[in-house]
Amino acid sequence: MSQHRIDELLSVFGLLRRSAYRIVQYCVLAIGLAAMMAMTIPDLGARSATWLAVTLWCCLGFFAAELTIKSWPRAGAKAAPRYLLSGPGLIDLLAVLPIPLALLFGAPTGTAWLLASLWLLKLAPVVPGLSLLGRVIEQEARPLASVFVIFLIVLLLSAVALHLLERAGQPERFGSVPRSLWWAVTTLTTTGYGDAVPETFLGRMIAALVMICGLGVFGLWTGILATGFAAEHRRREFVQNWDLVTSVPFLRNLDAPSVIELTRMLRRLDLAGHTVVVRRGRPGDCMYFIASGEVEVRLEPQPVRLGAGAFFGEFALLDGGPRTATVVTTMPSTLLILEVSDFRSFTAHHPELAQTIETEAARRKSAEGRPRHGHATAPAIPGKRHR
Amino acid sequence: MSQHRIDELLSVFGLLRRSAYRIVQYCVLAIGLAAMMAMTIPDLGARSATWLAVTLWCCLGFFAAELTIKSWPRAGAKAAPRYLLSGPGLIDLLAVLPIPLALLFGAPTGTAWLLASLWLLKLAPVVPGLSLLGRVIEQEARPLASVFVIFLIVLLLSAVALHLLERAGQPERFGSVPRSLWWAVTTLTTTGYGDAVPETFLGRMIAALVMICGLGVFGLWTGILATGFAAEHRRREFVQNWDLVTSVPFLRNLDAPSVIELTRMLRRLDLAGHTVVVRRGRPGDCMYFIASGEVEVRLEPQPVRLGAGAFFGEFALLDGGPRTATVVTTMPSTLLILEVSDFRSFTAHHPELAQTIETEAARRKSAEGRPRHGHATAPAIPGKRHR
Amino acid sequence: MSQHRIDELLSVFGLLRRSAYRIVQYCVLAIGLAAMMAMTIPDLGARSATWLAVTLWCCLGFFAAELTIKSWPRAGAKAAPRYLLSGPGLIDLLAVLPIPLALLFGAPTGTAWLLASLWLLKLAPVVPGLSLLGRVIEQEARPLASVFVIFLIVLLLSAVALHLLERAGQPERFGSVPRSLWWAVTTLTTTGYGDAVPETFLGRMIAALVMICGLGVFGLWTGILATGFAAEHRRREFVQNWDLVTSVPFLRNLDAPSVIELTRMLRRLDLAGHTVVVRRGRPGDCMYFIASGEVEVRLEPQPVRLGAGAFFGEFALLDGGPRTATVVTTMPSTLLILEVSDFRSFTAHHPELAQTIETEAARRKSAEGRPRHGHATAPAIPGKRHR
Amino acid sequence: MSQHRIDELLSVFGLLRRSAYRIVQYCVLAIGLAAMMAMTIPDLGARSATWLAVTLWCCLGFFAAELTIKSWPRAGAKAAPRYLLSGPGLIDLLAVLPIPLALLFGAPTGTAWLLASLWLLKLAPVVPGLSLLGRVIEQEARPLASVFVIFLIVLLLSAVALHLLERAGQPERFGSVPRSLWWAVTTLTTTGYGDAVPETFLGRMIAALVMICGLGVFGLWTGILATGFAAEHRRREFVQNWDLVTSVPFLRNLDAPSVIELTRMLRRLDLAGHTVVVRRGRPGDCMYFIASGEVEVRLEPQPVRLGAGAFFGEFALLDGGPRTATVVTTMPSTLLILEVSDFRSFTAHHPELAQTIETEAARRKSAEGRPRHGHATAPAIPGKRHR
Repeated sequence: MSQHRIDELLSVFGLLRRSAYRIVQYCVLAIGLAAMMAMTIPDLGARSATWLAVTLWCCLGFFAAELTIKSWPRAGAKAAPRYLLSGPGLIDLLAVLPIPLALLFGAPTGTAWLLASLWLLKLAPVVPGLSLLGRVIEQEARPLASVFVIFLIVLLLSAVALHLLERAGQPERFGSVPRSLWWAVTTLTTTGYGDAVPETFLGRMIAALVMICGLGVFGLWTGILATGFAAEHRRREFVQNWDLVTSVPFLRNLDAPSVIELTRMLRRLDLAGHTVVVRRGRPGDCMYFIASGEVEVRLEPQPVRLGAGAFFGEFALLDGGPRTATVVTTMPSTLLILEVSDFRSFTAHHPELAQTIETEAARRKSAEGRPRHGHATAPAIPGKRHR
Repeated sequence: MSQHRIDELLSVFGLLRRSAYRIVQYCVLAIGLAAMMAMTIPDLGARSATWLAVTLWCCLGFFAAELTIKSWPRAGAKAAPRYLLSGPGLIDLLAVLPIPLALLFGAPTGTAWLLASLWLLKLAPVVPGLSLLGRVIEQEARPLASVFVIFLIVLLLSAVALHLLERAGQPERFGSVPRSLWWAVTTLTTTGYGDAVPETFLGRMIAALVMICGLGVFGLWTGILATGFAAEHRRREFVQNWDLVTSVPFLRNLDAPSVIELTRMLRRLDLAGHTVVVRRGRPGDCMYFIASGEVEVRLEPQPVRLGAGAFFGEFALLDGGPRTATVVTTMPSTLLILEVSDFRSFTAHHPELAQTIETEAARRKSAEGRPRHGHATAPAIPGKRHR
Repeated sequence: MSQHRIDELLSVFGLLRRSAYRIVQYCVLAIGLAAMMAMTIPDLGARSATWLAVTLWCCLGFFAAELTIKSWPRAGAKAAPRYLLSGPGLIDLLAVLPIPLALLFGAPTGTAWLLASLWLLKLAPVVPGLSLLGRVIEQEARPLASVFVIFLIVLLLSAVALHLLERAGQPERFGSVPRSLWWAVTTLTTTGYGDAVPETFLGRMIAALVMICGLGVFGLWTGILATGFAAEHRRREFVQNWDLVTSVPFLRNLDAPSVIELTRMLRRLDLAGHTVVVRRGRPGDCMYFIASGEVEVRLEPQPVRLGAGAFFGEFALLDGGPRTATVVTTMPSTLLILEVSDFRSFTAHHPELAQTIETEAARRKSAEGRPRHGHATAPAIPGKRHR
Repeated sequence: MSQHRIDELLSVFGLLRRSAYRIVQYCVLAIGLAAMMAMTIPDLGARSATWLAVTLWCCLGFFAAELTIKSWPRAGAKAAPRYLLSGPGLIDLLAVLPIPLALLFGAPTGTAWLLASLWLLKLAPVVPGLSLLGRVIEQEARPLASVFVIFLIVLLLSAVALHLLERAGQPERFGSVPRSLWWAVTTLTTTGYGDAVPETFLGRMIAALVMICGLGVFGLWTGILATGFAAEHRRREFVQNWDLVTSVPFLRNLDAPSVIELTRMLRRLDLAGHTVVVRRGRPGDCMYFIASGEVEVRLEPQPVRLGAGAFFGEFALLDGGPRTATVVTTMPSTLLILEVSDFRSFTAHHPELAQTIETEAARRKSAEGRPRHGHATAPAIPGKRHR
């Protein structure tokens, strides 16, 4: 148990170090991008050229150091070449290499530093949604491609039609099909710059049709992406929740279909240490299961600590009253939230769960052995300590 | 029972007073905002300066009085400092304080009164959807952040690319990355002002890609927000309906899964007093449960009053005929609507409900003891008094 | 039965007359609107003034005649005043009265005829979706209002902010709050005319935020309307299909939950007389139930007629082969379509339906007593006459 | 079996030939369209006129040859006239005929070659989504028409209103209703060219309303199309998957409701030959059923081949570990993917499937008779050869 505590402390420390490192990285990123932008502003770039250059070189140095450390051969890590070929490694390489190379090959300083915009890609691996989006595009490739072909056909036919109709009147705007295509793109996406506008009657009729088609294409695109994203998101959440649900002994003992149903209902909540989860006196609209970490229920004579596998906040659901105690995490914790609507729906179909929750609460209370002040609205259920 | 009647009357009176007060508040708000706007119009502002100033000071006085009354210490209310720190209190403070402070610190009158636009925030607590929106954004924070990062990456990379390609030809529009970013924002959101338009071939190709990405980003955004909003809306409605359903004795006696199912189907309807709910002769496509309040069924010899817990409008669903009586609320009431499609679906799976409804109707009819004129299309079911 | 046949013929005749009348009405509408538009074109309006005026007066006469006939007191129809106060009656009045009134009160001819645009409202009652839309807006009033308040708050705050920031540089565009509001509206809706564009750095930052908010507001709006529309559409379709399903004896005999399930699956198809429903040799992906009307199955020695309550097209679903006979409606008919995916899903859960369909097919075949040429791919099932 | 192998080889060869032919066709299409566009660019078109003309004639020749071959009368194919009247035939005709005809009837060369844009229609039959879209539009015709009528009414009324309000100030833009309509279309679709902008106060109020209506119309349109597309897509996928599922003996033996449920869960994956399906060491989030084709499981002493009807990748789902072997297709194959979330949900409700999978795996292992190196994380389940 002592070993477990040490491991826990180490993991908390590692987490803190990691998140502190991440904040430093974001700051360097923001400063670097700001300096790059400032450099391109004629006046400012000339006046503070030295300072901006120093800043940019520092940022580059930081990213180079990061790349070196990450790709350094060491036990328990990927080998350097393998890391450099993986996704994050490639992004790190893209952040460091192009700028010196461009300077080496004689590109003007101002232009070379524009490559610093590639640093923004460092955000990509952090964001979970990007890989999600990749999968959605892969899975919905066929309908998306269909819509894209419709887009292309409407684009080209309308561009040719407007070239025919408008080239006499506006040769500089519709004089060739590529120019006409530019008009078609801005119109079909309903961007509408207004730099090229049809002026003949027929041209305007076709333009109106193109706009309406644009709405349709847009609608399909939106629908496909949104539906696919929602489905993939749900699927991924299910897989993550499943691992968490099966780590809670109390939930694991339910029969398989119930576990599946509950996994679909639960929502994951990752909290840092010392965060307030539930505040005394507030209305309660959900209960919590602790998948990992620990919380402290701030009861009057003496607070109570609940570890992984426990649950709290159920009394507010059972009697509809406000929260009776404040609950705070003591370390970074992962909780599973069960909304009141899902709780009611689930216990209606599985009355044994409500039974188990009440039994468990009674058991925990008798183990403590301290009778709490009664509760006016629901005196039948004893010991509503952590609501 | 007499006490109950008095309480009811008091609550009705309170409601009326509250809604009358709200109308006054809205009028003051509208007049104040109009005066503020008029003040900024050069001619008008100069001509009627005095009148506008008087109007604005009156509105400010109204809101100051409102703030004072609301934060006055009294029994059964929050203490003043606590109210001022709550959401509505902060909004009330924002409406009153900034303008005098700005005038005090020497801001020109015209500029100071522009702060009156903060009065519009008074609408925020009234609108239930705003807190809903807050929760949706909180819950969908991860996917929304993902889409935002995609947005940022596309934005910066396209801005840099167009800066490179167009700075030679249009230095005043793409001469620096921040200027180029302005173009990128207007294009990626498909706003398309047309003040900055790429002119090179490659620049236009990239612009076309940015527009198409814009549609995609937009689609994801729309999808995430809309899905989250719909889910949260359903959840909140469930919780509200649950409380109402469990206040109807007739529904409370169903088994738990049926209550859950029914709670999902019902739709809440808040009506003022003396409102027509159902009009005789109109086609009937739903039945009503009374969660609170009272209605009057306008039957021929003598009207019948139904209180909380009763239901009406069921005969039109049972035989498909038109409504046989007009029903009017006698006081502000909350009804629960069951659509005909849900009614049929529910009674198909729970034939005992249809049974209960018929029994209840028969019971109520025999209690009245007055046989009604028969109904041509469905003579088998007796006593279709309030369809 | 003879009486039934006559009634049927009369109803067919009435339907034809009604649809012929509708086509005439649409033509008059189109011609009238075109003439109204032509009148406003300077050259054309002057040159053919007489012809256009004659056309417009004729159209007006047509609509006046229509109004007179419809509101004429007669048996079985609404009384004139009641008709004039109903929705369609008001639209008919709006089409006829305003133009003579405007001319009477001395409006110039050109302006008076612009009121002919009200004729377009005649399309409204024909389109079922409009009342649907009305109900959606009524039901989703709360969330729609919430989004509208968000829209208003963003609009006003951004307009005031840009007024402050840009009034010095562009007084003619941002010099007053109403002018600034115009910019805010065009930006928040992502229309982006480009007639007013912020030029200061801060102004552009705020504009970018407004555009992104615009996408969000738009997304919520879209989501709420689309979800509500879909739900209401499904509900209405259920009610319509229910009446049709219960008119097919074969379906009516299923147990209640199955009828509900089937009603959700079926799709209604209204066909004119002498329309081809199914063509021999084409792949079959659905089967049909006849809710009303009659079809002719073009079998080789002699065609077979199927009336209301019958079904056809089931063999293609049972064995996956192409259609074996062409089916044509003999009169305006309403069919219910069951898609192959729903058919398989339904028969998997209700094997008795597949049984019933096969039995019914066998019964019909033996009643005819003519053995048909065998079918290569599925010889086990006898009598695949009308696939 | 030998015959079967030959047929298989022929079909693979045919597939390769077909896909090689398709690539050639796409190249010709791209080159032809590029040449057509280049011809319209004044400078380029004049300088390289000969080369462009030769290129275009070659492309036309290619399409003409294609048409001739496809419509040539031969055994097992449609007769020429019938082919020419079918969808793809008409598209082939449209690609070949119009250009020579236009040249014959004396159209200028440049204009005649613009008809080459019709070549793009050749993409249409390839894209499965187009026919899908056609069906969606057919099925959702009523609500789409409703929205279109709303669109038309808003369009015409706002155009007339702005004509009235703005014709005095901007006669060249709002001087006639058709011109005003152009403004209304660009505004209602939120395209916003900015070539016509209202300048009166009332005109701007109406324009703001039109923009907000535009968002609403857009939202409905989007919602209807997206919902319809998603539903039709699911339906079509069900039909395709059903045929595949019933070709896997192992799945066919499940009871009917389970097959339906599984068919809804599975996702189809078409792979070329020699494609890696699963890579050793990667996390596993799905299992695969082979509907047609063959895969090679790269096991250590000797690879194992699995043909149609087999499944693989199930161990990663059973114990949550990484993939233990790489799997590669040996020929073009169609696989059915079962995601881990669906797998868990399905086996929870149908424990016999998990049983069958384990039994089948054990059977296959004992048939091979070669004990494999144990697996550290889950030694209880024997023979995890192809995870």
